[in-house]
Amino acid sequence: MTHTSVAAYAAPAPKAPLERTTIPRRELGAHDIEIEIKYAGICHSDIHQVDNGWGEGIFPMVPGHEIAGVVAAVGSEVTRHQVGDRVGVGCMVDSCRECDNCKAGLEQHCTGTGNVQTYNAIGRDGEPTYGGYSTHVVVSEDFALRIPEGISLDAAAPLLCAGITVYSPLSRWGAGPGKKVAVVGLGGLGHMAVKIAHAMGAEVTVLSQSLRKKEDGLKLGASDYRATSDPATFEELAGRFDLIINTVSANLDVDAYLSLLRAHGTLVQVGAPEDRLGLSPFSVIGGSRAVAGSMIGGIPETQEMLDFCATHGLGAEIEVIPAEQINDAYRRVQASDVRYRFVIDASTI
Amino acid sequence: MTHTSVAAYAAPAPKAPLERTTIPRRELGAHDIEIEIKYAGICHSDIHQVDNGWGEGIFPMVPGHEIAGVVAAVGSEVTRHQVGDRVGVGCMVDSCRECDNCKAGLEQHCTGTGNVQTYNAIGRDGEPTYGGYSTHVVVSEDFALRIPEGISLDAAAPLLCAGITVYSPLSRWGAGPGKKVAVVGLGGLGHMAVKIAHAMGAEVTVLSQSLRKKEDGLKLGASDYRATSDPATFEELAGRFDLIINTVSANLDVDAYLSLLRAHGTLVQVGAPEDRLGLSPFSVIGGSRAVAGSMIGGIPETQEMLDFCATHGLGAEIEVIPAEQINDAYRRVQASDVRYRFVIDASTI
Repeated sequence: MTHTSVAAYAAPAPKAPLERTTIPRRELGAHDIEIEIKYAGICHSDIHQVDNGWGEGIFPMVPGHEIAGVVAAVGSEVTRHQVGDRVGVGCMVDSCRECDNCKAGLEQHCTGTGNVQTYNAIGRDGEPTYGGYSTHVVVSEDFALRIPEGISLDAAAPLLCAGITVYSPLSRWGAGPGKKVAVVGLGGLGHMAVKIAHAMGAEVTVLSQSLRKKEDGLKLGASDYRATSDPATFEELAGRFDLIINTVSANLDVDAYLSLLRAHGTLVQVGAPEDRLGLSPFSVIGGSRAVAGSMIGGIPETQEMLDFCATHGLGAEIEVIPAEQINDAYRRVQASDVRYRFVIDASTI
Repeated sequence: MTHTSVAAYAAPAPKAPLERTTIPRRELGAHDIEIEIKYAGICHSDIHQVDNGWGEGIFPMVPGHEIAGVVAAVGSEVTRHQVGDRVGVGCMVDSCRECDNCKAGLEQHCTGTGNVQTYNAIGRDGEPTYGGYSTHVVVSEDFALRIPEGISLDAAAPLLCAGITVYSPLSRWGAGPGKKVAVVGLGGLGHMAVKIAHAMGAEVTVLSQSLRKKEDGLKLGASDYRATSDPATFEELAGRFDLIINTVSANLDVDAYLSLLRAHGTLVQVGAPEDRLGLSPFSVIGGSRAVAGSMIGGIPETQEMLDFCATHGLGAEIEVIPAEQINDAYRRVQASDVRYRFVIDASTI
């Protein structure tokens, strides 16, 4: 394949509905692999970027950074993957590979060129990147992950963003046996946080606006499920948790959530609210607590997460849709009407 | 000594000058020790509490939670200390001893009764506590620390608050060889942070409003000293530090300081500004950074800090004053005119 056109779903302009089109994929380089995409997850940030929510996007835009597929071709010097391998691509497809962060496996924090996002970015070759709502993608072998046999490709796709986004802070901040973890919000990120934290051995509580999804939460691995609309929740759970993963983008009362932490506990923000965070200094000084942020994970940690999920039989809870339903799915995501991730069947593109 | 009166300097009322008086000290209990106080440091929070800055204080108030002295008497069941031992008392003199935090040596975060502060508090016996601006104090043996021979008592006194306040976050957040640590503010806390971080093996930078104390900073162990009033500082040091210890109580531009952190870096607040902290969520999500707080340290860690300081020959930089100069010293502390801690010679009380 040399700079072939492939089928894709793209937003031709900001806020426009996605439509079927063709896009170029680059020539297979010596260190590249070509992936036949099988499934692509729909992440809330896809919608945000189509809507220019994070600034001027690059259009036409082919979203999709939760990609699962099979290797269709390998470049002449590829060593990490073989034709037929099950592989995934997440939020980034390249980085400088030379800075301290890249060398440390924190490519998402590349301080050289910055990481190259899977779509809505300009690659190091100067060409725009196009994401996973497509039939094929060509990427550097170093940014493709192995998807172990234990996970089906459709349930694996959302792990490449939602999975690693919660796995990384759970791992870094010590979720495990004897630890109490709260997950704020039971959506695409939150439902994976519950599954992974539970598999890590932690005791998991879901904090959600209402008890609407309580049955799901308990089934996914939570041992408790509380409504944050009920003020008693904050009284009863005061000082309870070692770790809180906040997956909600809405603006929270940070002080109230910090009051739920034990001494030395950490509140990790993975969803990005549009407003600034405000907190009392005493909310962190008292209890020696922390407010942290976390942004996806590096390539080695993403592989570790996939291996962990395979070992523990974890995948995302998904609703597989044909490509023609992408725009409907966007509306349903915005209405929080999905349990818990839409995944596009790429054979329908 | 049974409920004896001892000499002390007290503020008779909020914001009033301190004057010589006598105060009661409790009868020596079976697990108590009586300490002949030799030196007491003047902490900025002493002034704050005399001024009712943290709410209604208990008056007359005898401040002082940086106490160094010698054991003068021991209760019948005391095992940890002997008459003649060099000992210190810090910010707390008791706690419930039964909650998870107390059992974990985090008595400062006691969730039972709460910790009992060394002064301006009510002890578990229902009597007010009086601090170190005094000739003697009676405390539980469990809340007295051993001061190793390697540190003179006058230079040791400020370690009991200023020292542990910075040692704890430096230790917890991994200051050491290969790590770059910035200390914001070169005052009582900051100068100890520089000394301790340097002794831990970290590369230390002082961030201060001006370069006025640069020579001191370099002498104390910093390898770099920058003025935060110079915008170039924030450009040149972007992404530089693993850890920033903010000892300044003034309100900082938190986003600007977070931008100085490497990926996975932490900004620790030990000084408490009066206003709320405000930050962009992207300042912590980008770089997966954290804003933490830290409140003194538990008893085991305070002992560890004293032992560390003795091993490395560290004490505070002090100006020893007679008790009659306490009010002058307060004015000079408020004017930042001290390098770096006033210590009262208790023999002059």
